[in-house]
Amino acid sequence: MSIVFLNGEYLPIEEAKVSVLDRGFLFGDGVYEVIPCYGGHLFRMPQHFVRLQRSLDAIRLHSPLSNDDIAEALMTLVNKNPQHGDNQALYLQITRGPDQNGRNHGFPETINPTFYAHTKALPPYNYEEARRGKSAITLPDIRRKDCYIKAISLLPNILLHQQAHDAGSEEAILLRDGYVTEATTSNVFIVKDEHIYTPPASPYILGGITRDLVIELANNYQIPLSEQPIDETMLRTADHLWITSCSRHIHPIVQLDNKQVGNGTAGILWETMIKLFDDYIATERSDQDE
Amino acid sequence: MSIVFLNGEYLPIEEAKVSVLDRGFLFGDGVYEVIPCYGGHLFRMPQHFVRLQRSLDAIRLHSPLSNDDIAEALMTLVNKNPQHGDNQALYLQITRGPDQNGRNHGFPETINPTFYAHTKALPPYNYEEARRGKSAITLPDIRRKDCYIKAISLLPNILLHQQAHDAGSEEAILLRDGYVTEATTSNVFIVKDEHIYTPPASPYILGGITRDLVIELANNYQIPLSEQPIDETMLRTADHLWITSCSRHIHPIVQLDNKQVGNGTAGILWETMIKLFDDYIATERSDQDE
Repeated sequence: MSIVFLNGEYLPIEEAKVSVLDRGFLFGDGVYEVIPCYGGHLFRMPQHFVRLQRSLDAIRLHSPLSNDDIAEALMTLVNKNPQHGDNQALYLQITRGPDQNGRNHGFPETINPTFYAHTKALPPYNYEEARRGKSAITLPDIRRKDCYIKAISLLPNILLHQQAHDAGSEEAILLRDGYVTEATTSNVFIVKDEHIYTPPASPYILGGITRDLVIELANNYQIPLSEQPIDETMLRTADHLWITSCSRHIHPIVQLDNKQVGNGTAGILWETMIKLFDDYIATERSDQDE
Repeated sequence: MSIVFLNGEYLPIEEAKVSVLDRGFLFGDGVYEVIPCYGGHLFRMPQHFVRLQRSLDAIRLHSPLSNDDIAEALMTLVNKNPQHGDNQALYLQITRGPDQNGRNHGFPETINPTFYAHTKALPPYNYEEARRGKSAITLPDIRRKDCYIKAISLLPNILLHQQAHDAGSEEAILLRDGYVTEATTSNVFIVKDEHIYTPPASPYILGGITRDLVIELANNYQIPLSEQPIDETMLRTADHLWITSCSRHIHPIVQLDNKQVGNGTAGILWETMIKLFDDYIATERSDQDE
């Protein structure tokens, strides 16, 4: 049985309930984060807190917990859920809470935000499986124009994601006005002539913590990488295609819309980057142990 | 104390709770309707059911209740809440329910939708207040491209609505690529040279039941009305501007972005239309009484 955290209490997930008046339930009025925990260490916590604050500011909501309290609650969750193993993915969500005056679009006079968090097992990264690659499809990006907010109003994401799933694919890569934005639950990178490209930060994409780390590592190790718009032709003529997310790290996509991407392999730059990425995780973890 | 309806049970709102795993709470994965009830009669119920089914189809969800069962539940709610008076606004929401395997973007293997409904008082339409008109502001339409779905993923709507409220305005009229789509909780009509215009149905707007009735009444009574795109210039040079919704009926907007609309009056066509609208409500009600 999983233990979750809801408004200050640790309780079995079966008992964790919110009011039907919670604005998360009525309006999707809230934000969230997903934070990996490797061997008891929260991954890039400062970066996650910066992003969480950006999301909260964008929806004009104050967190009911300080960052220290959040980190403590998340670590307590990890400790209360040993069945999920050494590596876990922590989820937290803050909504504008229930409005005692009922359902009204305008903000409530008195705001009591709801803070919810849970954790689940993060399966070990499977290099062999990743190296074989997965398939993706392209779909029009019908989402909000403020996707830089990590908000729970995710209906288009889940519908697009399900379309990809129904097509036997791992992800849907989204195109807005002819340009790649991101995928439904991950960011997108391409490789062309041994140069890495990813769409620049914009209101249309959620700047992933993994995305930012890939860029940082490329810069640190002088691997050519440009943040620049990727149009449909660049996408379709790429030598390699990756998606990145906290749970997938860097994952090669070797089939796009039923056509092979480049020569259909993960490629040498992926081998390099995934090695640097793993070394980074190990170093961050041992730095925290010191 | 209000009595609400949740998954087959009538219970005090304080006791109405959903699991934190409900996909309504985690993803905004659900749809809704708001249905007026005048003197014990549900307003344009067949039209509301058609729209509800369109929304459900679009998100690939089956209602756990038949239309007859829904109508019965709503009328029972009205009867259990006499404190809300003779006219009420019924709200119903259907979400994809909780996924016992946790939070996953893909649809759950077994789907147990959540059906929730409540009711509140619908204040009598105040002609004098309506005739004086209200103010609105314009804002960029940053919402999903599939706004024809009446979905609970409403974060952009509530943020835009709150911006209007903070500016002392009743509504925000939204512009996408230079054209009016709708307002955050209502549809938009303009009058120019005694001709009524409203943006045509499209994926970018939610076809309001009130909107459709205004069009129908204009057709029935040979009042010139065109469904055609309204660009920013047309909007700003309109003689009159209305917003329509179930709770507001047809409401004149006499100030837009701090400038007077036309001569600042509700206008003769509004007087005509609101009369036809009220007559329609009275007739529908008495037809149902027969």
